[in-house]
Amino acid sequence: MNIVMLGAGNVATHLSKALQKKRFSIVQVYSRTDASAKALAELLNAPYTTKTDDINSEADIYIYTLKDNALEEIIHKINLPDAIHIHTAGSVNIDVFEGRAKHFGVIYPMQTFSKSKEVNFENIALMVEANTVETTDTLFGIAQQLSNRCYKTNSEQRKKIHLSAVFACNFTNYMYTIAEELLNETNAPFDILQPLIAETAEKIKYLSPAKAQTGPAVRYDTVIIEKHLKMLENRPELQQLYKEISKLIYNKSTTNI
Amino acid sequence: MNIVMLGAGNVATHLSKALQKKRFSIVQVYSRTDASAKALAELLNAPYTTKTDDINSEADIYIYTLKDNALEEIIHKINLPDAIHIHTAGSVNIDVFEGRAKHFGVIYPMQTFSKSKEVNFENIALMVEANTVETTDTLFGIAQQLSNRCYKTNSEQRKKIHLSAVFACNFTNYMYTIAEELLNETNAPFDILQPLIAETAEKIKYLSPAKAQTGPAVRYDTVIIEKHLKMLENRPELQQLYKEISKLIYNKSTTNI
Repeated sequence: MNIVMLGAGNVATHLSKALQKKRFSIVQVYSRTDASAKALAELLNAPYTTKTDDINSEADIYIYTLKDNALEEIIHKINLPDAIHIHTAGSVNIDVFEGRAKHFGVIYPMQTFSKSKEVNFENIALMVEANTVETTDTLFGIAQQLSNRCYKTNSEQRKKIHLSAVFACNFTNYMYTIAEELLNETNAPFDILQPLIAETAEKIKYLSPAKAQTGPAVRYDTVIIEKHLKMLENRPELQQLYKEISKLIYNKSTTNI
Repeated sequence: MNIVMLGAGNVATHLSKALQKKRFSIVQVYSRTDASAKALAELLNAPYTTKTDDINSEADIYIYTLKDNALEEIIHKINLPDAIHIHTAGSVNIDVFEGRAKHFGVIYPMQTFSKSKEVNFENIALMVEANTVETTDTLFGIAQQLSNRCYKTNSEQRKKIHLSAVFACNFTNYMYTIAEELLNETNAPFDILQPLIAETAEKIKYLSPAKAQTGPAVRYDTVIIEKHLKMLENRPELQQLYKEISKLIYNKSTTNI
């Protein structure tokens, strides 16, 4: 199957590489930005374009990995109703393709991609959805070649799963960022936190996160909480966040008991 | 060296086991609660008591792993000024022992302990502090037998490190809890998030968390953010949290550039 990759960001890069590894042929890369298109095209040894008019019209599948609000714009510029069109976004409805194609769907890889960090695609949860049973089977078949964790979901489920990923990944990473900022104020390197971060992530393989909760908030240790709030006096926005999350943790724990 | 363990919670359990493994002798367990004292004592094959008057007065070291606000109370009941007294709390000043002992200090293990989950003590960062150079050396020597990651810190550094651990561990775990709650509203099992959580924690070994940030907030994808806020309409406290963290992530990213 011949694939055109529209978008050349982190998702495009990791997904294209995974597809090539499984002998799918990326016949073209499209990106509005010349540098991005060129970089990914060189990596894949494929041609590229920055013009929608020059997009290869002979491919079987068009994969849109564009920033969510650029997606609709480009879909309306491309008129290839017989190919399969798929996007990879967690929170964009499948019907974004409605009226523009006969066969369309979504493969949403639930992972955090950064250009400089390799990922093992085989472990990534892939949420698959399409407008017909036949296309669902085609896309699910492709997904299964890439990963051992493929799930058929509808748009509502996928959006909820994406929202949960924002908390579990993006917001978690921001908690790490705050921790790093606080450590920078002492002489301790960020590295000191690595075993704790690893164990926190590891632990929830065996315990539900609600059961794994530790710390001053869950044991309602007001003495420590007050000390921490005092230490955050020069960072009012973090002080506020500390208060709110502590309250939510405590409320959750008392509701559970 | 003979040790009395005061407290029988998660820290006491994991620390005692690690000490026993290195052939330290736990000669007694004290806890106010009979069931906890008994459970840990049986695990360690050591005697126990629930009465401060019956605490063994012959030990070399007294380790206080009590809830932070119970610590002062018990210290004032124990009158053994010649032994070494140490606590394991992240945010309690070393001077809590002042006037009650000649040799005192802190070994703070930066880890999240749950009773039912084994941890490898050798990887845990241990923050060591004492009131004299001699006691610091003694405690650092003990710490080094338990772990490969021992650090000498003062009380101010330790408290900041503890605060950073609250964000990196306790608050992170709460982000997982929210993710689990959201997934429960669909049919997806929590397990679906494991590769994402693992990669989020793994990634920051190679990239600083500020550089590893992904998601709608850092790319200022207002379309997705609005969708997510709408999905959280029935959970106003999470909607508020989502807004706040997204704003902080976005502000952080624009300050960096």
